[in-house]
Amino acid sequence: MKDKVYKLIELTGTSTKSIEDAVNNALKRAGKTIQNLGWLQIVETRGSIEKNQVNHWQVTIKVGFAVK
Amino acid sequence: MKDKVYKLIELTGTSTKSIEDAVNNALKRAGKTIQNLGWLQIVETRGSIEKNQVNHWQVTIKVGFAVK
Amino acid sequence: MKDKVYKLIELTGTSTKSIEDAVNNALKRAGKTIQNLGWLQIVETRGSIEKNQVNHWQVTIKVGFAVK
Amino acid sequence: MKDKVYKLIELTGTSTKSIEDAVNNALKRAGKTIQNLGWLQIVETRGSIEKNQVNHWQVTIKVGFAVK
Amino acid sequence: MKDKVYKLIELTGTSTKSIEDAVNNALKRAGKTIQNLGWLQIVETRGSIEKNQVNHWQVTIKVGFAVK
Amino acid sequence: MKDKVYKLIELTGTSTKSIEDAVNNALKRAGKTIQNLGWLQIVETRGSIEKNQVNHWQVTIKVGFAVK
Amino acid sequence: MKDKVYKLIELTGTSTKSIEDAVNNALKRAGKTIQNLGWLQIVETRGSIEKNQVNHWQVTIKVGFAVK
Amino acid sequence: MKDKVYKLIELTGTSTKSIEDAVNNALKRAGKTIQNLGWLQIVETRGSIEKNQVNHWQVTIKVGFAVK
Amino acid sequence: MKDKVYKLIELTGTSTKSIEDAVNNALKRAGKTIQNLGWLQIVETRGSIEKNQVNHWQVTIKVGFAVK
Amino acid sequence: MKDKVYKLIELTGTSTKSIEDAVNNALKRAGKTIQNLGWLQIVETRGSIEKNQVNHWQVTIKVGFAVK
Amino acid sequence: MKDKVYKLIELTGTSTKSIEDAVNNALKRAGKTIQNLGWLQIVETRGSIEKNQVNHWQVTIKVGFAVK
Amino acid sequence: MKDKVYKLIELTGTSTKSIEDAVNNALKRAGKTIQNLGWLQIVETRGSIEKNQVNHWQVTIKVGFAVK
Repeated sequence: MKDKVYKLIELTGTSTKSIEDAVNNALKRAGKTIQNLGWLQIVETRGSIEKNQVNHWQVTIKVGFAVK
Repeated sequence: MKDKVYKLIELTGTSTKSIEDAVNNALKRAGKTIQNLGWLQIVETRGSIEKNQVNHWQVTIKVGFAVK
Repeated sequence: MKDKVYKLIELTGTSTKSIEDAVNNALKRAGKTIQNLGWLQIVETRGSIEKNQVNHWQVTIKVGFAVK
Repeated sequence: MKDKVYKLIELTGTSTKSIEDAVNNALKRAGKTIQNLGWLQIVETRGSIEKNQVNHWQVTIKVGFAVK
Repeated sequence: MKDKVYKLIELTGTSTKSIEDAVNNALKRAGKTIQNLGWLQIVETRGSIEKNQVNHWQVTIKVGFAVK
Repeated sequence: MKDKVYKLIELTGTSTKSIEDAVNNALKRAGKTIQNLGWLQIVETRGSIEKNQVNHWQVTIKVGFAVK
Repeated sequence: MKDKVYKLIELTGTSTKSIEDAVNNALKRAGKTIQNLGWLQIVETRGSIEKNQVNHWQVTIKVGFAVK
Repeated sequence: MKDKVYKLIELTGTSTKSIEDAVNNALKRAGKTIQNLGWLQIVETRGSIEKNQVNHWQVTIKVGFAVK
Repeated sequence: MKDKVYKLIELTGTSTKSIEDAVNNALKRAGKTIQNLGWLQIVETRGSIEKNQVNHWQVTIKVGFAVK
Repeated sequence: MKDKVYKLIELTGTSTKSIEDAVNNALKRAGKTIQNLGWLQIVETRGSIEKNQVNHWQVTIKVGFAVK
Repeated sequence: MKDKVYKLIELTGTSTKSIEDAVNNALKRAGKTIQNLGWLQIVETRGSIEKNQVNHWQVTIKVGFAVK
Repeated sequence: MKDKVYKLIELTGTSTKSIEDAVNNALKRAGKTIQNLGWLQIVETRGSIEKNQVNHWQVTIKVGFAVK
């Protein structure tokens, strides 16, 4: 069976800096147990607020990777 | 890396009693293998019918928990 | 033709008690004219309010049954 | 102008008991400042988890009432 | 009644710098009249264009806060 | 802070005449307490029926206005 | 069983005049076989084009009525 | 009243062969009681699994036909 | 290749009069460069407000036409 | 500017044979004027019916290609 | 606890042949590690293009199976 | 005809830096052939991954501009 199959998992990354950083934090963590992360899609962007500013960006993503 | 990362999994709990009970059944089962379940969101509520009454409530949820 | 075909109809059940009861009221009524109700899916949950409490739960469902 | 106008506000009610109770808690609170609550629609149902059971149901609703 | 109730309002923040800054501008303004802003969710991200670049990011958010 | 912030509220206007008239009725009413209404978006169009004709058009809109 | 049950059917009304007229045409036709039409919701608005103008408005609606 | 009115019904066709065949099975069955089926739209495609292969494709469609 | 292929483009028509007129204005303009406009679907209805009334209806449509 | 930019267009392909064939018919036609078609996504699947069978599959797709 | 609990995972199967084949390729692969696959639902259908034809169908599905 | 008409096109901009930069790259490219770009809306945010970090942000936008 040559046709590739991919698995998609859903993660929420957080960051005090930016939306992009929250996504990368999620990927960094996922990469510890999954070797070949391929692509992601943002599902939802939320945030916690402190002193009228975003304290933590909470970005939920779907991450796809080839199943070997 | 101090910023927390969460994983979301999707489960369908069933119950003959209520929607709430179906959700709790799914959580009870997930808690056997995952220690720190944090929050859930209902995705879809379905049911099987017998004798013109709901026989089993089938409630699909997303459950989030911190990845250590 | 052995492959089964199902019909889906949309109903709104109401109840002063609970969401589950509103669904069962709709099924009870549908069962008077349709014999083999198979499954349901909740489409929308609304309610009328009286004295700052839900007076009637109004739950719209899709109900499926095999066409003979 | 005889044609009525309604306002819709969005609330999240919480409850340790049930989805219905979370909705009623939101309505009870809204009724303290708004007199003529008319109808509601469930927008989202979430929950916090403790000991593998739902601890607090968090039900987000839209509530409509006539503007006088 | 111990169960908390939250209100959600919808705001569009704008910024010439970034999506994150537009969100924070909306929160900064909301914080002038609301004391306990709790969390936000991005609903829509738009922008006005000038000289083939985004001139103002316009980010619509839902902001939740506990009703006392 | 020069970047503008807008608030969005949700209203349901009604009219026996037309969808457009229902929207304008909602705006007319909102304009009594809010001075600088800027734009609207139709969210949902419903109607009540009498004698097999629409009796009242019920048009739910989001209205945006600059927060000063 | 005092709690009312409603049925929802989906129709597409057409008209060369307006969106409102297309809805009323659908209701007029439905009223020939269903006595107690209660409310409608617009699902989709399409149209056929001739000579660069809308020829027929095609408005799909859900119509609800109490099941006796 | 010359403007046509159409009715839309929802069906789930099944087939062991293909998605297209499941749709045609639903249409074949609907054609036994409705003479002038006009068009369809796929709403959802599901399937039951046996031995790690799709056993029955279950395709839910909306079918429209002119009401005479 | 006998099977027809259609292209869909997205336009926003505006009008001070009505939703229908905004759609027709978009079609009138599109017809200057495209000869065989076939059908349209309303995607979104917005409006700008002046003196608490809709000033310009802004109706976004998808328009389909056969590619020769 | 090394970062690539892609354009997405929307097409409806038709076929008497299958959903896949309708997609390929749309691509074949698009390929006559666009050289580097890259990927597609199915947006909607409809069909016209004749003699209780699908006569023409009508599959709407978004097609992406790199802008040079 | 007799009430069954199901897990849903998301996979993207690919195939040069057809949408159905892409789904089955995903199931075949999932079946190597999960024994009791129960049902699937198509989430999204995409494809890569080569020479103006679909090269690989990429079908994303949710697969459900009972958790023992 | 004084009422303006706008066209909306869909683009995917990419960038190794940020979501905002990907949007601006798409606008920069579109501005080479279209003079009066007016506004944009983000439709989807995806990314390719390399070494457990986002390699290219891929942001799909709708861009509107007045048709003269």
